[in-house]
Amino acid sequence: MLNELFTKLESYYDEMVSIRRYMHQHPELSFQEYSTAKFIQDYYEKLHIEVMGNVGGNGVVAKVYGKKPGKTVALRADFDALPIQDEKDVPYKSLVPGVMHACGHDGHTATLLVLAKALNELREELEGTYVFIHQHAEEYAPGGAAPMIEDGCLESVDVIFGTHLWASEPTGTIQYRTGPIMAAADRFEIEIQGKGGHGAQPHKTKDAIVIASQLVLNLQQIVSRKVNPVESAVVTVASFTAENAFNVIADKAKLVGTVRTFNENVRQLIEDEMGRIIHGTCYTSDSAYKYDFVRGYPAVVNHEKETEFIISCARDIEEVQIIEETEPQMGGEDFGYYLQKVPGTFFYTGAKPVTNDEGYPHHHPKFDIDEKAMLIAAKTLGTAAVRVHKE
Amino acid sequence: MLNELFTKLESYYDEMVSIRRYMHQHPELSFQEYSTAKFIQDYYEKLHIEVMGNVGGNGVVAKVYGKKPGKTVALRADFDALPIQDEKDVPYKSLVPGVMHACGHDGHTATLLVLAKALNELREELEGTYVFIHQHAEEYAPGGAAPMIEDGCLESVDVIFGTHLWASEPTGTIQYRTGPIMAAADRFEIEIQGKGGHGAQPHKTKDAIVIASQLVLNLQQIVSRKVNPVESAVVTVASFTAENAFNVIADKAKLVGTVRTFNENVRQLIEDEMGRIIHGTCYTSDSAYKYDFVRGYPAVVNHEKETEFIISCARDIEEVQIIEETEPQMGGEDFGYYLQKVPGTFFYTGAKPVTNDEGYPHHHPKFDIDEKAMLIAAKTLGTAAVRVHKE
Amino acid sequence: MLNELFTKLESYYDEMVSIRRYMHQHPELSFQEYSTAKFIQDYYEKLHIEVMGNVGGNGVVAKVYGKKPGKTVALRADFDALPIQDEKDVPYKSLVPGVMHACGHDGHTATLLVLAKALNELREELEGTYVFIHQHAEEYAPGGAAPMIEDGCLESVDVIFGTHLWASEPTGTIQYRTGPIMAAADRFEIEIQGKGGHGAQPHKTKDAIVIASQLVLNLQQIVSRKVNPVESAVVTVASFTAENAFNVIADKAKLVGTVRTFNENVRQLIEDEMGRIIHGTCYTSDSAYKYDFVRGYPAVVNHEKETEFIISCARDIEEVQIIEETEPQMGGEDFGYYLQKVPGTFFYTGAKPVTNDEGYPHHHPKFDIDEKAMLIAAKTLGTAAVRVHKE
Amino acid sequence: MLNELFTKLESYYDEMVSIRRYMHQHPELSFQEYSTAKFIQDYYEKLHIEVMGNVGGNGVVAKVYGKKPGKTVALRADFDALPIQDEKDVPYKSLVPGVMHACGHDGHTATLLVLAKALNELREELEGTYVFIHQHAEEYAPGGAAPMIEDGCLESVDVIFGTHLWASEPTGTIQYRTGPIMAAADRFEIEIQGKGGHGAQPHKTKDAIVIASQLVLNLQQIVSRKVNPVESAVVTVASFTAENAFNVIADKAKLVGTVRTFNENVRQLIEDEMGRIIHGTCYTSDSAYKYDFVRGYPAVVNHEKETEFIISCARDIEEVQIIEETEPQMGGEDFGYYLQKVPGTFFYTGAKPVTNDEGYPHHHPKFDIDEKAMLIAAKTLGTAAVRVHKE
Repeated sequence: MLNELFTKLESYYDEMVSIRRYMHQHPELSFQEYSTAKFIQDYYEKLHIEVMGNVGGNGVVAKVYGKKPGKTVALRADFDALPIQDEKDVPYKSLVPGVMHACGHDGHTATLLVLAKALNELREELEGTYVFIHQHAEEYAPGGAAPMIEDGCLESVDVIFGTHLWASEPTGTIQYRTGPIMAAADRFEIEIQGKGGHGAQPHKTKDAIVIASQLVLNLQQIVSRKVNPVESAVVTVASFTAENAFNVIADKAKLVGTVRTFNENVRQLIEDEMGRIIHGTCYTSDSAYKYDFVRGYPAVVNHEKETEFIISCARDIEEVQIIEETEPQMGGEDFGYYLQKVPGTFFYTGAKPVTNDEGYPHHHPKFDIDEKAMLIAAKTLGTAAVRVHKE
Repeated sequence: MLNELFTKLESYYDEMVSIRRYMHQHPELSFQEYSTAKFIQDYYEKLHIEVMGNVGGNGVVAKVYGKKPGKTVALRADFDALPIQDEKDVPYKSLVPGVMHACGHDGHTATLLVLAKALNELREELEGTYVFIHQHAEEYAPGGAAPMIEDGCLESVDVIFGTHLWASEPTGTIQYRTGPIMAAADRFEIEIQGKGGHGAQPHKTKDAIVIASQLVLNLQQIVSRKVNPVESAVVTVASFTAENAFNVIADKAKLVGTVRTFNENVRQLIEDEMGRIIHGTCYTSDSAYKYDFVRGYPAVVNHEKETEFIISCARDIEEVQIIEETEPQMGGEDFGYYLQKVPGTFFYTGAKPVTNDEGYPHHHPKFDIDEKAMLIAAKTLGTAAVRVHKE
Repeated sequence: MLNELFTKLESYYDEMVSIRRYMHQHPELSFQEYSTAKFIQDYYEKLHIEVMGNVGGNGVVAKVYGKKPGKTVALRADFDALPIQDEKDVPYKSLVPGVMHACGHDGHTATLLVLAKALNELREELEGTYVFIHQHAEEYAPGGAAPMIEDGCLESVDVIFGTHLWASEPTGTIQYRTGPIMAAADRFEIEIQGKGGHGAQPHKTKDAIVIASQLVLNLQQIVSRKVNPVESAVVTVASFTAENAFNVIADKAKLVGTVRTFNENVRQLIEDEMGRIIHGTCYTSDSAYKYDFVRGYPAVVNHEKETEFIISCARDIEEVQIIEETEPQMGGEDFGYYLQKVPGTFFYTGAKPVTNDEGYPHHHPKFDIDEKAMLIAAKTLGTAAVRVHKE
Repeated sequence: MLNELFTKLESYYDEMVSIRRYMHQHPELSFQEYSTAKFIQDYYEKLHIEVMGNVGGNGVVAKVYGKKPGKTVALRADFDALPIQDEKDVPYKSLVPGVMHACGHDGHTATLLVLAKALNELREELEGTYVFIHQHAEEYAPGGAAPMIEDGCLESVDVIFGTHLWASEPTGTIQYRTGPIMAAADRFEIEIQGKGGHGAQPHKTKDAIVIASQLVLNLQQIVSRKVNPVESAVVTVASFTAENAFNVIADKAKLVGTVRTFNENVRQLIEDEMGRIIHGTCYTSDSAYKYDFVRGYPAVVNHEKETEFIISCARDIEEVQIIEETEPQMGGEDFGYYLQKVPGTFFYTGAKPVTNDEGYPHHHPKFDIDEKAMLIAAKTLGTAAVRVHKE
């Protein structure tokens, strides 16, 4: 039966490419993907596949029911684009100024739509139920995953799979990892309220720049002294602003930054330690402060069994030449929300364009993918979806 | 003869006030005091006093020759205004939006013009020569004093006196100090060039915010460890700018600040130590930097003999009730340039408005002076000018 | 054949215990294990097994030759004790004041001796060659492994296995890890030479305490900013000494500490970054310094194939109930030297005493092991040794 | 009458020298000056001058009553020695091993004894009362001045004068200063109690070395940011001790140091700011601490009128060639206690040995004075004592 599926996917490859290119020319920003959502919904409706729009916002969920009993398997693709000007010189270049599919979500969507079509055609032979989660707004916190889940997209789902086309690895590569594969990405803001004054009279002031500088250094000690060395964590002060004339003493300083972790305990530890360090540091100069720690996406933490399962699926796909464990990445992804609810795994499908020696990184104005990788992604996800009932 | 001078000054008091008020209504910013300069020059010309305009810019220099031989004595008054909106509710309020005599230079000028007129009338009885230096651009570095000196205003001058009407002390007060009375005020700029990157990948970057924060703390050690504790010095980082999105690592940070000193050796020490500290701190992270140390006005360092002389003069003026040593002030004044060339002293003449309990500080939008103080300033400077030939 | 081996090992269990207890009563410090080495050598000689003493110091190497061709397999046990007073209340308590087998090396040796005896008895049925490496001086850098290797103990060895009896895990547990399982443990010393002086005259000095304090904080940035967050590293300043009377300024300060890493590149990076940071920090105050970075044991980096193989061996041993991946440990072990030369793996054999709820940690004066664990260790190592020829 | 006094002093110069040399040979440490006190008391008793011993400890107070009414004038000399080995090669070298008059107190005592003798002989012509305060224990806090005052030595005293023979200035120099001339010298101790642990496991500890290093840097900001720049202050961490093996994390760190100030408000400010900074810094890592701030001598703050008066006295002494203002000194002296109670002044009498180009500093094993300076000191103090009734 997998042979049949693969044959169908191969025969629909041109459609996959044309869907992807259409989307590439018509990108929409996160939370504004109205036409893209309609495009997806229309696709399913034309095929008489059950579909629901406006799931948790612009999300779209379609379902295919196999004839035989089995698990309910969700597959997820995101479909929002980025505020980047497309600088590629290709026929399918973005038609929207300043907006671009610079992360491959167009490819994710094309892959999933065509895989859904193929599975639907084989539904008489299939076990279980197939849920196709087309998620909006992955690029912009708080993201689309959480509201879609709240709106029921995971209802009765037993297992979920997702992949990211990955332009830094050659086509033919599948990268997996048990446990954390992408980091939780949080944001913090700290405002220090000292007391300004004349640059020549420090004794009448509370110098906000000195306090904030001390704070920047003290925050380094969280990673160097407070986090277990076998855990990964980043605390970055990205922005320090206290702009004043040369002869005054700063009244105020603002720090903004990000925290990255893979482990909820470490995440909480850092939030707490930051609070303690800010309080103590400001106390030394009797200064006031405001501290906000805003949680972004959680880490993407893959389940062990499902990850081993996806490896075994990938082994059976001819085009896959390399299957390897990846380092965890400090970047974020809201796929983590799904994995907090149901077992599953998220993997990378190598998609480096062949003509491009170096490859442009994701979010680059010249970013592109090797479209052949869509077929590999579809086969891997399809194999998992069909076989998982046996596991 | 001093009695005669005092009588004249008293009889011209109304003129003094009307000159001051006219100027108060027609303030001009530093280096743009064209009408004010013309006003001063006209005043002297009408009195047939020798006068020269355009001295080192908008400066004006007048001379009165006594009949008898004696020293050449310079008296200095500045005449520029500030970019401040006058918020007083008085008939003589500034007519120029956003420009205001908020430091009392109008009073300095009125004092000196009327004193010159009175001395000119007594010239048959006077010894020596009287040079009236009307200086432009005191408020804005590099100031008017240096170019006026270069243009010859101190030629053959033996001694110089100057005063500042001082709104924080009551009228009737004269404050003096031997040695430094106002600080050298320098400016520095430091640009740190690290290497930016993604907020989650510190190991690929050189975090300019961390480096600059370290630098801010290290600079504290100049005053705490490198300057002789019996010397006064201030090193203030006034501005720290490195504004970025929350998830990047800062490429660059800019620090701007001021250094205040009374002693040339300390000033040089600080400039050098800053260079050393910046170099070492940037070396720790292999970062590049630019460091500019721009010297502003030198300290105003009063000469001992002339300061003691001015005290003795002040003692003989009836209106003067308090003569006291003042603390050195960390603020700047370009009178220091004159004292680098010829002996002299700069003192404060109390001028706190009687109706104003607290007094508004200099450079405040509601700043004003007690005009009676002009008469005291004129008598003190006049006494010094007439008597100094005996010293 | 493994059944035979297991039966033999079980029947020799009492001997194993009595060897271990004898050694426990007669511990010897690292590099002084003369009697222990003789005891081991005698044991082999009595059994007519080929043995060589004084290998790279006090090391002993024995060899058993199987009848059939096969790989050369090395098994390693260390045999030195620690400078700790035994505070246990047991009949086999240490008889040597202040010296104790507080890390289980007595158990390692007993395990290996009896396993060698059993394998020797089965040599007619065995493939390949068996090398029993009894290593001295594991506890004290530079350790016994390196000189034993230099002296030829790994000659023609194809693969090596070693285990550590692990008192914090229950008997019946085997913990493995591919890649780094124990850290490289290095030592550094930094001497800062400032310029001392009177506590009231900082401007005539270079305050070594201020410089060294700055350095301590700057060193935090190596882990927080310079090491890839997915790598593990520790930089600890363990000792800061600058003792002086209350009214002087410190001439000198000494910092001593340790660096822990799993990855050679990270290790080198840290050594280099420390050098850069020390240089820059001392430059800020024109101070001199000495910096020594002394490499200790390398990380123990297990090979993947051999680690998977040992897992499969452990699965077939009835007493093993838990097989699990362990976190890498920041502690050190000189087994790493062997793995730099030949493939192999190092694993933990749970040995927590049953009567002891909490368990005393390794190096504790009341440390003990569950002797039953020796049998499990012997079976696991034995299985690996016998089966590895097929891999 | 002053002529008579001077003639007497000159004729007694040999006695002055012999007293000084006798004391130089028989030095006694602070609070142990029993023989010296007896020697002084005997001297007065032999001259039938009223004298009292055991004043506030080993202090001795003598009184001479003038015939005419007048003020009560106190003159003070200290008489303790230092724990230093005399390394000079002179006939009057110390006979006590390890104890030496290395600060000139022997000279102070000889000066005052002979001056008292001469004044006593002139008592019929003198106005007022003369109190000769021979103070023990100036070198060692809490000093002898405070208990002598408590014991009544200043009772009905109107004014006090004291001098220090000053080996760094040539004989013939008198140095004065209105306001602070010597600093308050305080001592602090800070113990930081973190939580120790293994050097490889920072996350289980509170690293006392990191906390204390942060504290050292934060304390720099007191002088750089909190003290008025026109005030002098020193905060020195003199000692930092946290000695440990290379592979542990420090449990505890101890800082000891000194604070120097001239102004009580600044002194209090620093004590308070230190408390605040220690609290805040320890809070950042949830560490405990102990903080002791032990006040030493107060600043020596000279009164203006008495300082100007001593200048006028010095002008009339032929041997005095240089009269100059001195910089304030950051060192300490318990003469400050007297000046908190009664008006007066403390000045330096130049006493640099002529044969010694460089001069050995006070407290040096080869320290000596030019004995001629004693005569100048006696004349200056004597002139002040006799003339002050007119002021």
